[in-house]
Amino acid sequence: MLEGYRGSALQSLLQINADIGDLIEIEKNGNTYKGILMPSYSPYDDIIVIKLDNGYNIGVSIASAKIKLIKKKSESRKETQEVSKSTKSEIKIISTGGTIVSKIEYETGAVRPALSTEDIIKFMPEINNIAKISAEILFAILSENMTPEHWVKIAEAVKRAFKEGNEGVVIAHGTDTMAYTASALAFSLKLPGPVVLVGSQRSSDRPSSDAAINLYSSVLLAKKAPFGEVVINMHGESSDTYTLAHRGVKVRKMHTSRRDAFQSINDKPLAKVEWKENKVEILRSDYIPKRDEVEEDAKFDTHVFLLKYYPGLTPDILEYLMEKKIRGVILEGTGLGHVATSFVDYIKKMTKDGVFVGMTSQCLFGRVNMNVYTTGRLLQEAGVVPLEDILPEVAIVKLMWVLAHESDQEKVKKLMLTNLVGEINPRHSLDFFPRWNYD
Amino acid sequence: MLEGYRGSALQSLLQINADIGDLIEIEKNGNTYKGILMPSYSPYDDIIVIKLDNGYNIGVSIASAKIKLIKKKSESRKETQEVSKSTKSEIKIISTGGTIVSKIEYETGAVRPALSTEDIIKFMPEINNIAKISAEILFAILSENMTPEHWVKIAEAVKRAFKEGNEGVVIAHGTDTMAYTASALAFSLKLPGPVVLVGSQRSSDRPSSDAAINLYSSVLLAKKAPFGEVVINMHGESSDTYTLAHRGVKVRKMHTSRRDAFQSINDKPLAKVEWKENKVEILRSDYIPKRDEVEEDAKFDTHVFLLKYYPGLTPDILEYLMEKKIRGVILEGTGLGHVATSFVDYIKKMTKDGVFVGMTSQCLFGRVNMNVYTTGRLLQEAGVVPLEDILPEVAIVKLMWVLAHESDQEKVKKLMLTNLVGEINPRHSLDFFPRWNYD
Repeated sequence: MLEGYRGSALQSLLQINADIGDLIEIEKNGNTYKGILMPSYSPYDDIIVIKLDNGYNIGVSIASAKIKLIKKKSESRKETQEVSKSTKSEIKIISTGGTIVSKIEYETGAVRPALSTEDIIKFMPEINNIAKISAEILFAILSENMTPEHWVKIAEAVKRAFKEGNEGVVIAHGTDTMAYTASALAFSLKLPGPVVLVGSQRSSDRPSSDAAINLYSSVLLAKKAPFGEVVINMHGESSDTYTLAHRGVKVRKMHTSRRDAFQSINDKPLAKVEWKENKVEILRSDYIPKRDEVEEDAKFDTHVFLLKYYPGLTPDILEYLMEKKIRGVILEGTGLGHVATSFVDYIKKMTKDGVFVGMTSQCLFGRVNMNVYTTGRLLQEAGVVPLEDILPEVAIVKLMWVLAHESDQEKVKKLMLTNLVGEINPRHSLDFFPRWNYD
Repeated sequence: MLEGYRGSALQSLLQINADIGDLIEIEKNGNTYKGILMPSYSPYDDIIVIKLDNGYNIGVSIASAKIKLIKKKSESRKETQEVSKSTKSEIKIISTGGTIVSKIEYETGAVRPALSTEDIIKFMPEINNIAKISAEILFAILSENMTPEHWVKIAEAVKRAFKEGNEGVVIAHGTDTMAYTASALAFSLKLPGPVVLVGSQRSSDRPSSDAAINLYSSVLLAKKAPFGEVVINMHGESSDTYTLAHRGVKVRKMHTSRRDAFQSINDKPLAKVEWKENKVEILRSDYIPKRDEVEEDAKFDTHVFLLKYYPGLTPDILEYLMEKKIRGVILEGTGLGHVATSFVDYIKKMTKDGVFVGMTSQCLFGRVNMNVYTTGRLLQEAGVVPLEDILPEVAIVKLMWVLAHESDQEKVKKLMLTNLVGEINPRHSLDFFPRWNYD
């Protein structure tokens, strides 16, 4: 089945009896390209797509090119399977879905989760050189459908993986809500090794996919990193130079489509992975060290609400939340941590009723400070808790976790202000703010 | 009244009979500092704070320094008043409140809006060299209390200012919701000259205040810029080198406290102001040109809601919004523009009932694309309108404006997708994404 191939490309491939997954060689203009034949989604009839050794997919026009079959897929698959079957694994890849394990729907051009992690390993046999790999398909959902119940299942799977003796865990995950899951796991797990969340911004059967490199460097990181932390490991630049491992509670998807969309906010990444040299460079010494045993405590109370403030928003939304028996609200306020003073009386009533109300900033960068302006002080008097530099998205996940573990209002407040896993950065550097390049 | 001065600094000032606002000269270690005496908030007894000619405040220790009174405040005030009284102004400064016109509450250390724009001009007489200035105190509120009704009043004041013959308008505004007001004005006004919103991140009586420079360069911009657009003009870097004029519908406050907190998202600034050289550098040619006459059409329907999606959010919030007779919802979805598929049926019901539902991305950078993934296509079938690269904060303001002008659902949709004042950027450059500097 030569998926997607037509015209002259199809004919050439049929002539050499090549199939998707076979190792082939293309000679053209003095250059030789060797790689695994991939399905084609090119609009052109003469393009053959192969995955190179370096994990990158390229499309080559067969015009004036010579192509040769090097090895059938069946042979390489046998090798992979032998490795997978070998007794005990060192790194476990848990697949939850997302683009990194997706393929394109032919009819519509849209992407659906489909390929298993083992399929990915098949396309990326080099991973087996890093560590003994095992794979588990936990579920296959697009990450916008991830819920706190899924977080619990992932945390349990991570626990199992470490109990089985793995040194590290890689979680293939959709990028949309990957940062939320990373926070949820960070609050829920005490770890004897790295937990690396990884995804891709281009599906793995597209020539420009970042899936292979991200996965490869994540396995490398899970094997070599000295920390017991949850990180997100994705492209560090839009080109395939290196990946960055961001602390799970200090990272945000900052672009809809760029491969380097994930960036640390108010923080530095923990590690840089130079995948070409199989090198993991640790960028900071203040990581959470590995523990002897894994501990899992994944519980989330979803009786919370993340309310983003904007001019024109009226406080009656808070009345609705009270009726819904909400236990906590994260305000995504303006600037240093403000909402209109018309909210003060409503908030006072809420906090008196035992509802936790925490303040974060829609600026994202910087720290809330509710002592500078009158409004901030009024809100604090009404019981609003300024949440330092915790990101709004992290604060809502932390609140779900805290409320599932504490009911006493003072203890909830204390836990929310306790720096559990690095979600609060007490020291900001000027460098944390990125540079806009307008020229 | 030598506000804030104690100890040796107070004694030295009393000896030369200096008051706040007087022009004084400090000679120290061979250097001479001439400037206007400012209130002191220094914790040290020996520091004198003056505002230099370049608009920057410095604190000088009087140890081994000689100080001299050059001119009493009363004399310079007379000059300023003469200028303000002169027949017709060229630039009008409308003051709405915010840090730029604030002072510190002595008892609490918190900041309250207090100083009038005329007070600022008093501290910054150089502004009168740029253009004939007039000032209006429209209101004095912290910008977190700004509402759509205030937007209408500001738009009307801008209209009046141009009708009076002014060439440009500067609006002093709190930074918290300045970007929302900028969008509201951009949609409401057709302009014969620049409308420059300006604020400060440090109050004007603090030594590190950016108030004077931002105000000075904003008057410069209002006088010299060739466009008929609403812009936000603030520090371009954390140091006092230059300011940048960002298109009002493409800018966001990206840091809680930095002076260069305002940055263009998915866009380039319109102009750079080299205030030291009195130079306005126009950075792009695709600005909206000046019109002959001002037109104002400020109406806003606040029956809208900005809903930020996160895992654990359930669609019953949409039922509440339906009960509240909401006319439009802006979703701040994940990634390319997604929410959980559990929302699809609720949204279908809403759009069928005539509610507009638009999609933006919480990534902020990049463009929504709801054709890539199954969820995106399902949401579109349910009637969700993908809003290109419009920022969530701009989309909610635009929706308020559009719904106040249109009731037909198809026309609302068409207007939301029409690029009215540059809120949609059809072409993104790779440079738009800032660079994180982790090393």
